[in-house]
Amino acid sequence: MSSLLVISAHAGDFVWRAAGAIALATARGDRAKVVCLTYGERGESAKAWREGKNLAEIKEIRRAEATNAADALGAEIEFLDAGDYPLQESQELVDRLVRVYREVDPGVVLTHPLTDPYNQDHPAAARMALQARVLAQAIGYDAPGEPLGAPPVFFFEPHQPEQCDFKPDVLLDITSVFDTKRTAMESLPAQQHMWEYYIDLAKRRGVQLKRNAGPNLGLPHNTVGEAYMRLYPQVTEVLK
Amino acid sequence: MSSLLVISAHAGDFVWRAAGAIALATARGDRAKVVCLTYGERGESAKAWREGKNLAEIKEIRRAEATNAADALGAEIEFLDAGDYPLQESQELVDRLVRVYREVDPGVVLTHPLTDPYNQDHPAAARMALQARVLAQAIGYDAPGEPLGAPPVFFFEPHQPEQCDFKPDVLLDITSVFDTKRTAMESLPAQQHMWEYYIDLAKRRGVQLKRNAGPNLGLPHNTVGEAYMRLYPQVTEVLK
Amino acid sequence: MSSLLVISAHAGDFVWRAAGAIALATARGDRAKVVCLTYGERGESAKAWREGKNLAEIKEIRRAEATNAADALGAEIEFLDAGDYPLQESQELVDRLVRVYREVDPGVVLTHPLTDPYNQDHPAAARMALQARVLAQAIGYDAPGEPLGAPPVFFFEPHQPEQCDFKPDVLLDITSVFDTKRTAMESLPAQQHMWEYYIDLAKRRGVQLKRNAGPNLGLPHNTVGEAYMRLYPQVTEVLK
Amino acid sequence: MSSLLVISAHAGDFVWRAAGAIALATARGDRAKVVCLTYGERGESAKAWREGKNLAEIKEIRRAEATNAADALGAEIEFLDAGDYPLQESQELVDRLVRVYREVDPGVVLTHPLTDPYNQDHPAAARMALQARVLAQAIGYDAPGEPLGAPPVFFFEPHQPEQCDFKPDVLLDITSVFDTKRTAMESLPAQQHMWEYYIDLAKRRGVQLKRNAGPNLGLPHNTVGEAYMRLYPQVTEVLK
Amino acid sequence: MSSLLVISAHAGDFVWRAAGAIALATARGDRAKVVCLTYGERGESAKAWREGKNLAEIKEIRRAEATNAADALGAEIEFLDAGDYPLQESQELVDRLVRVYREVDPGVVLTHPLTDPYNQDHPAAARMALQARVLAQAIGYDAPGEPLGAPPVFFFEPHQPEQCDFKPDVLLDITSVFDTKRTAMESLPAQQHMWEYYIDLAKRRGVQLKRNAGPNLGLPHNTVGEAYMRLYPQVTEVLK
Amino acid sequence: MSSLLVISAHAGDFVWRAAGAIALATARGDRAKVVCLTYGERGESAKAWREGKNLAEIKEIRRAEATNAADALGAEIEFLDAGDYPLQESQELVDRLVRVYREVDPGVVLTHPLTDPYNQDHPAAARMALQARVLAQAIGYDAPGEPLGAPPVFFFEPHQPEQCDFKPDVLLDITSVFDTKRTAMESLPAQQHMWEYYIDLAKRRGVQLKRNAGPNLGLPHNTVGEAYMRLYPQVTEVLK
Repeated sequence: MSSLLVISAHAGDFVWRAAGAIALATARGDRAKVVCLTYGERGESAKAWREGKNLAEIKEIRRAEATNAADALGAEIEFLDAGDYPLQESQELVDRLVRVYREVDPGVVLTHPLTDPYNQDHPAAARMALQARVLAQAIGYDAPGEPLGAPPVFFFEPHQPEQCDFKPDVLLDITSVFDTKRTAMESLPAQQHMWEYYIDLAKRRGVQLKRNAGPNLGLPHNTVGEAYMRLYPQVTEVLK
Repeated sequence: MSSLLVISAHAGDFVWRAAGAIALATARGDRAKVVCLTYGERGESAKAWREGKNLAEIKEIRRAEATNAADALGAEIEFLDAGDYPLQESQELVDRLVRVYREVDPGVVLTHPLTDPYNQDHPAAARMALQARVLAQAIGYDAPGEPLGAPPVFFFEPHQPEQCDFKPDVLLDITSVFDTKRTAMESLPAQQHMWEYYIDLAKRRGVQLKRNAGPNLGLPHNTVGEAYMRLYPQVTEVLK
Repeated sequence: MSSLLVISAHAGDFVWRAAGAIALATARGDRAKVVCLTYGERGESAKAWREGKNLAEIKEIRRAEATNAADALGAEIEFLDAGDYPLQESQELVDRLVRVYREVDPGVVLTHPLTDPYNQDHPAAARMALQARVLAQAIGYDAPGEPLGAPPVFFFEPHQPEQCDFKPDVLLDITSVFDTKRTAMESLPAQQHMWEYYIDLAKRRGVQLKRNAGPNLGLPHNTVGEAYMRLYPQVTEVLK
Repeated sequence: MSSLLVISAHAGDFVWRAAGAIALATARGDRAKVVCLTYGERGESAKAWREGKNLAEIKEIRRAEATNAADALGAEIEFLDAGDYPLQESQELVDRLVRVYREVDPGVVLTHPLTDPYNQDHPAAARMALQARVLAQAIGYDAPGEPLGAPPVFFFEPHQPEQCDFKPDVLLDITSVFDTKRTAMESLPAQQHMWEYYIDLAKRRGVQLKRNAGPNLGLPHNTVGEAYMRLYPQVTEVLK
Repeated sequence: MSSLLVISAHAGDFVWRAAGAIALATARGDRAKVVCLTYGERGESAKAWREGKNLAEIKEIRRAEATNAADALGAEIEFLDAGDYPLQESQELVDRLVRVYREVDPGVVLTHPLTDPYNQDHPAAARMALQARVLAQAIGYDAPGEPLGAPPVFFFEPHQPEQCDFKPDVLLDITSVFDTKRTAMESLPAQQHMWEYYIDLAKRRGVQLKRNAGPNLGLPHNTVGEAYMRLYPQVTEVLK
Repeated sequence: MSSLLVISAHAGDFVWRAAGAIALATARGDRAKVVCLTYGERGESAKAWREGKNLAEIKEIRRAEATNAADALGAEIEFLDAGDYPLQESQELVDRLVRVYREVDPGVVLTHPLTDPYNQDHPAAARMALQARVLAQAIGYDAPGEPLGAPPVFFFEPHQPEQCDFKPDVLLDITSVFDTKRTAMESLPAQQHMWEYYIDLAKRRGVQLKRNAGPNLGLPHNTVGEAYMRLYPQVTEVLK
């Protein structure tokens, strides 16, 4: 059994962008853990603010929604409540992530890409996720547990990929778990306008997936996908 | 059984840069076919010219050496004798490659990267290899055989990788077949100075491979590797 | 009255990728002229080949379809029948384009981007379009008409934008002419699977357009768009 | 009436690099507001230090000069006095900028580009300007005023553009207000060596502007310009 | 004594962009040879065409002017008269360049950069210059003379450097020979508007040169420069 | 006499990556000063941690080893003991570096490149080294000594160069001092596995150095090298 660790700036990011990968992992029997650095309470809860909710209420709503989504995906979820808009980088927060890495011992890590001119919280989360990964590898770093290996890191797709210098390295076939991803998305009713957008995106990535796989693989018409970038080179014994 | 197609500008390129991948394929029972567009008779046979050999003799020497190397790797080899230094692009040559694609129906394609300020034959070979691959996919292209699928393309490592904008996407573990690669290299006695260079490179890529794989994988101390770049996104059902 | 010139490798490209810009131009009363270097008879007519049509029939079908699409957009169309898959660059073809430039005297030029690892005809068309534009500017180039000005060039969106290094510089609001674009797309019944793909893309670019325009502009919910890249810097008297 | 917001690291930056854009805005009747994060008292006041002035005196000189330049341009100016060399990024400073954004509600934002190996204060200013813009858009961010729209951001030209990865996206014709820019520059007598440099640069950008506009536009011989980069895609209804 | 080889697309290019480097070489006693692939008779002789000159007359004018400029610089000049706008690449032309390389045995090579969206002749010249350099290195290439060494290649500055991805790697101090460069420029009276432009550019590069050299070097106020890019890494025994 | 300043994140970095350049400088009679921001006590001392050493012991071991290496190279060394893994950037640390710059008045600066996905301490060190260099140039910066000139900055080679976007600009011939570099490396017995790796790298860079220098320079078979990138353009009076 392997583990998947997802480090997300706000409560909803892991759903839109990585729910397929998470559902595939749990469907295989792997452990999946999502860490939300913040609830997205200020930056991604416009509807609730317009309805007059206060900060504590909004955090609670977001927490409940994200927990439901994680449940739908069969994933654990932890909220660090670090405060968003802005998510401020700190050594304390990085240290908390080091401890998560040591505890989870992930085989794969997912996080945001390092460039996003629309949302500085996303690269901030990614920088901390990457620094914590390297620190967790050092036997000299003072935290419980064994030194980490070198799990590959994949960046999930941002909202406007081209503007974030996001060029897909990997097209992940999520057809077999797409119903689960839909259910997870529907756990976030406040952002209903995102459902259609990310269903369309999954189809679009599915079309490209089929094109890059070639007709000979016989992928079905309704193939859907998620796109990722690799930070480190792939290590393998087979080119394919 | 899958097929591996290697398209190489000169007679030696496939040995230094891709012999590991070829040996892994044939060891798995896959078919491997090498196409040498030229013998490298003018650009990569300085020793023979200095010894006073003539063009026909040099081509014959190179042909014999490359054939021996391919034999060592368990691969088929075909020479198109298109003339090197310069390798001139032509539609006729592309058409010959289309026919090779249609006949081999490769599951994977290896060729040179598209930039090389030290040797314009290499990008010329790559451009023709890529164009032929796309043409072979079209049912409307007039050549025998079925339209090609969409085999992934990997660029093998050039002599001065950084100057060729070569950033490894894939580190291939060739430890299990490294003796075979050595034998193949030793089939090219005229370029003996390259043996040590490429053995050192294999070790270097092996060190990086272990570092990117992480200590937990338990790769042995003598791990050796080859580096590749992908042209198209990887299609997969598992992130790893 | 200004003129728009669209230079397209195959008969269908201008429809999927630039029909909105064309319809906006003709709706403003501008002249729009489309030049199709080929019919896309080999590379983009898989359905007809599978149905057993021959080359002449397929060219005729594509010609009729593209002409209908141009009619729907209010644009002129000219076919150079240069042969696709591969579209071979030649000085004769460039010279024909120079003559088109001199005759049309375009205020704006649209063509393919310069990188496309899925279809080498597209960059070939773009290189010829760009070279002809520069030649047409020279008084010393021997062709009828006055030397061209310096019309801006926009690259329209390729099928897999990220893999073609396509990063949108301009999001064009095509909401007011989207019905016309649909009609033009429906003139190409052989590629029906593309209709939905490009409708979804228009919505996606519309969402991004609204996000980049900001809520204050009051763009409607159903805003749709097309994405373009500029080759040359914008010249203006107002930053906006 | 629209508003232009210019966020500048030091007291002089907005003059050399954006005075033309500011003068064009105020000439159109728009509001223009300049925010100087520092006076440039340590890093850009070498002459005054050599003359033996103290810190308070230098700040006062720079304040007076920059105020005169802003007056010449018809712009408001505000000094945050955050301390230069180094300009230290802080959440307090970003919050002050959020409040400026909310108050000014700019239609367009100008700031430094994100790379400058000669002056780290410039990218620091740009990062804060960009973060504040995003925070000001969030209804959940606790600051007076309405959430901001999505004003486009333009980077003005650094002193050594190529070394700062500055590739002009926009050439702005400032011919009609160039006398005003000269007057503003002459408000900074301590940096007299810069006058000629930026007059020459304006001519150079003017030559390029004419070349990119084409001869048909009939721009006059003495056309002068300023160069800008866009951070976000342009949103428009007309390609030109 | 070393040799400098300059390969220029049109008759005037070497003057505006590299006259300083040429004059420095000849002032040191080095041999300098300029090869003009064309006279620039179609693309860069607008004035003569407007005056009604014919092709033969224009070539003769350009030849005389460029010869005068070369004389002023103490350089040899050779015209290949390959025809411009477009300069068509051919193996024959490359072969002629190989012979020049073998004869001159240059210690340094200057040519155009590989990207220029304003003039496709420039990259075409550069590609041929680079291919000929590599071919001339091969003992197996059939041309008179000894195989070439590996002379460094510098790209000189294009007219709109940023749009050509030109980022200066080297700032060359041409102060000591600037009068000679002026004289060479004045040998081209038909392009008088270029004189001031390139004098201003020399000053601009001079200001940057002083800034990058630092005040401690004591460079004079009137320092002027030319900018170059390196294609290959610098080989040296001293970092400076 | 000139001075060389090397700013290194950890105690060993300057040895593996820049010992050749340091030895060349001291062999010429120049002063060389190494500043180690940390001892590398947590991140690069795995062996000592596994042996059960404590933090103070490890720092002492690393200090002694690095001092021995500096002695072998004839260089001064200073340890700032800022704490590694993570090396936290602070204005206090930058200020200490400013004082070092002012005291050493270096003619050349060496440090890490700005990108390293395997070790965030390296870019952190580089950012501080670069900021301190700029601050030290300002007469208004309050620190003892004269304002600094503009010493060139070279980035030394990281462990996995391609992944760090490291493209060599300079190949430094260190053949004459390679024995000294070996001695310095052997002063770090805890990282014995690095000796061979960096000897192989020196050979590899030597092969490339010979290839880029050309056969005519007559470099010996055993040429070894180090690779560097320049941050700023080279200023020179001779192209070579």
